[in-house]
Amino acid sequence: MGILNIGIIGLGCVGMGVVEILKKNRALIAKRCGHELVITRGVVQDLSKKRAVDFPLSDRLEDILEDPSIDVVVELMGGVEQAFQVAQRALKQKKGFVTANKAMLAQHYYSLQNLGAMGFEASVCGGLPILNALQEGLGANEVLGIQGILNGTTNFILSQMEQGQDFASALQQAQALGYAEANAHLDISGLDSAHKLLILTFLAFHIQPSLDEMFIEGIERIKLIDMHYAKRLERTIKHLALAHKQGDKIALSVCPVLLDQNHVLARVEGVMNGVCVLGDCLGESFYYGAGAGGLATASAVVGDLMGVLNKKFYPTSPTPHTLKTPQEIQSAYYLRVDLSQYNNPLSLISPVLEECHIKICAYFQEDKTCIVITEIATQAHIQQALLLCRQIPELQGIYAMRLYP
Amino acid sequence: MGILNIGIIGLGCVGMGVVEILKKNRALIAKRCGHELVITRGVVQDLSKKRAVDFPLSDRLEDILEDPSIDVVVELMGGVEQAFQVAQRALKQKKGFVTANKAMLAQHYYSLQNLGAMGFEASVCGGLPILNALQEGLGANEVLGIQGILNGTTNFILSQMEQGQDFASALQQAQALGYAEANAHLDISGLDSAHKLLILTFLAFHIQPSLDEMFIEGIERIKLIDMHYAKRLERTIKHLALAHKQGDKIALSVCPVLLDQNHVLARVEGVMNGVCVLGDCLGESFYYGAGAGGLATASAVVGDLMGVLNKKFYPTSPTPHTLKTPQEIQSAYYLRVDLSQYNNPLSLISPVLEECHIKICAYFQEDKTCIVITEIATQAHIQQALLLCRQIPELQGIYAMRLYP
Repeated sequence: MGILNIGIIGLGCVGMGVVEILKKNRALIAKRCGHELVITRGVVQDLSKKRAVDFPLSDRLEDILEDPSIDVVVELMGGVEQAFQVAQRALKQKKGFVTANKAMLAQHYYSLQNLGAMGFEASVCGGLPILNALQEGLGANEVLGIQGILNGTTNFILSQMEQGQDFASALQQAQALGYAEANAHLDISGLDSAHKLLILTFLAFHIQPSLDEMFIEGIERIKLIDMHYAKRLERTIKHLALAHKQGDKIALSVCPVLLDQNHVLARVEGVMNGVCVLGDCLGESFYYGAGAGGLATASAVVGDLMGVLNKKFYPTSPTPHTLKTPQEIQSAYYLRVDLSQYNNPLSLISPVLEECHIKICAYFQEDKTCIVITEIATQAHIQQALLLCRQIPELQGIYAMRLYP
Repeated sequence: MGILNIGIIGLGCVGMGVVEILKKNRALIAKRCGHELVITRGVVQDLSKKRAVDFPLSDRLEDILEDPSIDVVVELMGGVEQAFQVAQRALKQKKGFVTANKAMLAQHYYSLQNLGAMGFEASVCGGLPILNALQEGLGANEVLGIQGILNGTTNFILSQMEQGQDFASALQQAQALGYAEANAHLDISGLDSAHKLLILTFLAFHIQPSLDEMFIEGIERIKLIDMHYAKRLERTIKHLALAHKQGDKIALSVCPVLLDQNHVLARVEGVMNGVCVLGDCLGESFYYGAGAGGLATASAVVGDLMGVLNKKFYPTSPTPHTLKTPQEIQSAYYLRVDLSQYNNPLSLISPVLEECHIKICAYFQEDKTCIVITEIATQAHIQQALLLCRQIPELQGIYAMRLYP
């Protein structure tokens, strides 16, 4: 039985999870992949921190990248440009490369993909093998749609808010429990989900859209009162990443939605992740599991380590793509206006909606809030209406959320 | 770009699905796997049937097995021994081998596994890539438990019965819709699920139990009245395949259960399949999708075709195993007695249960039926109690079902 020598860069939560798994499931892993996985060197930023590892540590990337005995490089350092350089150098030297770095892949997937075989299962939905499913199990399918809860922190906060906790304290709790990044902006703003949706999009549709082309909205503006109205509408608020193909056009968005309570994603609670994939042959399939956590994410990293050197790779370039424009994306919307300043907002909203060709489906007013549910409208018309409303002092705080589906 | 020459044996529903997918997604598949997949020959039993295919057909297995230009053999003929011979011959000639044949694999997996790389994703849960997930994505995990709805026909019948249709007419409908095998015994009796559970067990635990060692019960004895009581108990009746590891022992069973309504498998309806896997690193993950249907199953066959020749294989022999005995498997039980013959069955059941060390948790009697819910008891004690009850004429028809979890 051969030995696979691994150099690991970054020994935070996920890195130490990799160390732990390779220790406790050593024999099982060797039996399954035909060789022993041994970490022979680690590189960390701060050597003064004590770490319970039995391999030498250094703080120089070269110690791994220029060591010819190392077969596979695991990059868990985070960041974009330096991690990209590490990936390039590792692949150019025909080393295997395994990463959990979604921000880096969202930007550089295609140039790396042409250099060699890499494993990046851990970059989307932690330990849940959704990339594997897309690339292999569903490889025969034209993918027609993807719907996912891809960020555990956001989903945890929304689940807590559903129980009555307010946004700030739910975020604080997520940070205390170690779910949220220290800088939670990436989670909350939807950017982390957008990075992951891009990676899914690369694999499913073979296109290369950029973040700028996508509609991305975070959860910062959701209030407790929205949870109340969601229940009344028999819906639940979830932050979804959506990709739908129609003809040659693909619609991409990352945003909170009022989700039908019977939708399979409505039951994904707390830090869990879930992804629905619609394939032209298989139909709908659904994948659910822990999207965060050191050991769960490390489970995907080690899974990649077991197979990366056997992986065949076929250099591909992205297919030219056309995304759907806001004029082409349609949905019913939920509009919320705070009434503290004015108690007859409908008289102000109605003419604006009419001007923007948006019809009102339902309307109700309670305490100090007014809710309007629109008929199906284009995203462009809604955006135009919001712009116009925000010019009216009494409607400045208007908030809109899609009803989905 | 290279060409992969495929010989296909069997052109029923799944076989024709493979033909269809290779036609409609030809370019996409070639792009993804780096070579074109071309069926160069088909072997069928009845050459007189008309089939819309553009490759030559014959009725001699040798025409595929002895053709050196064929790279991969797809076996969709069914049956056990002849299919096993086909597999052996293909693998010994270093051809790739792809199959959907669970009955054959349940018996011969380990001897084939030592001959070469095979693809058999389609053998369990149709198009849902659950074997891929177990082998690759979750490869770093010690598997601690598997719970699955592995047979679409059985699940369809139970879903229909939940809506008020009786067993016989639900089965008829399943057959009319093409879900059930012509001989539905394999589905209904639980044998088909047992074959699939064995395959999952090979991959997850690396052991080789036989069918005789497993507790297997079908759905034939479930009555409409059980659906009524299930609802009253806030449970739903599902036919589950269960594997649980505790220490060095594994409990395997395939049987109908009264499942907690909040369990994720409770929402798997109709012909869909679902599998929960508990891994020691990842925790719980769940996979859901079409477990039957020509195109869905063919989706897995083609997925396998795309990768089988790149697959590394490591000859392994099964680890010695100890299964839990009925003395070690515990559960609460639902007992149903028909009262048409006698209206005070409790006076007869109570002493038997007491003799078998089984305590009664709840009891209710309605119309012509008496239901007893037991406290947690061993399977051995329940089996003993059923034997004793069936010797009492008034209790002959007693039926028992596990509460799960």
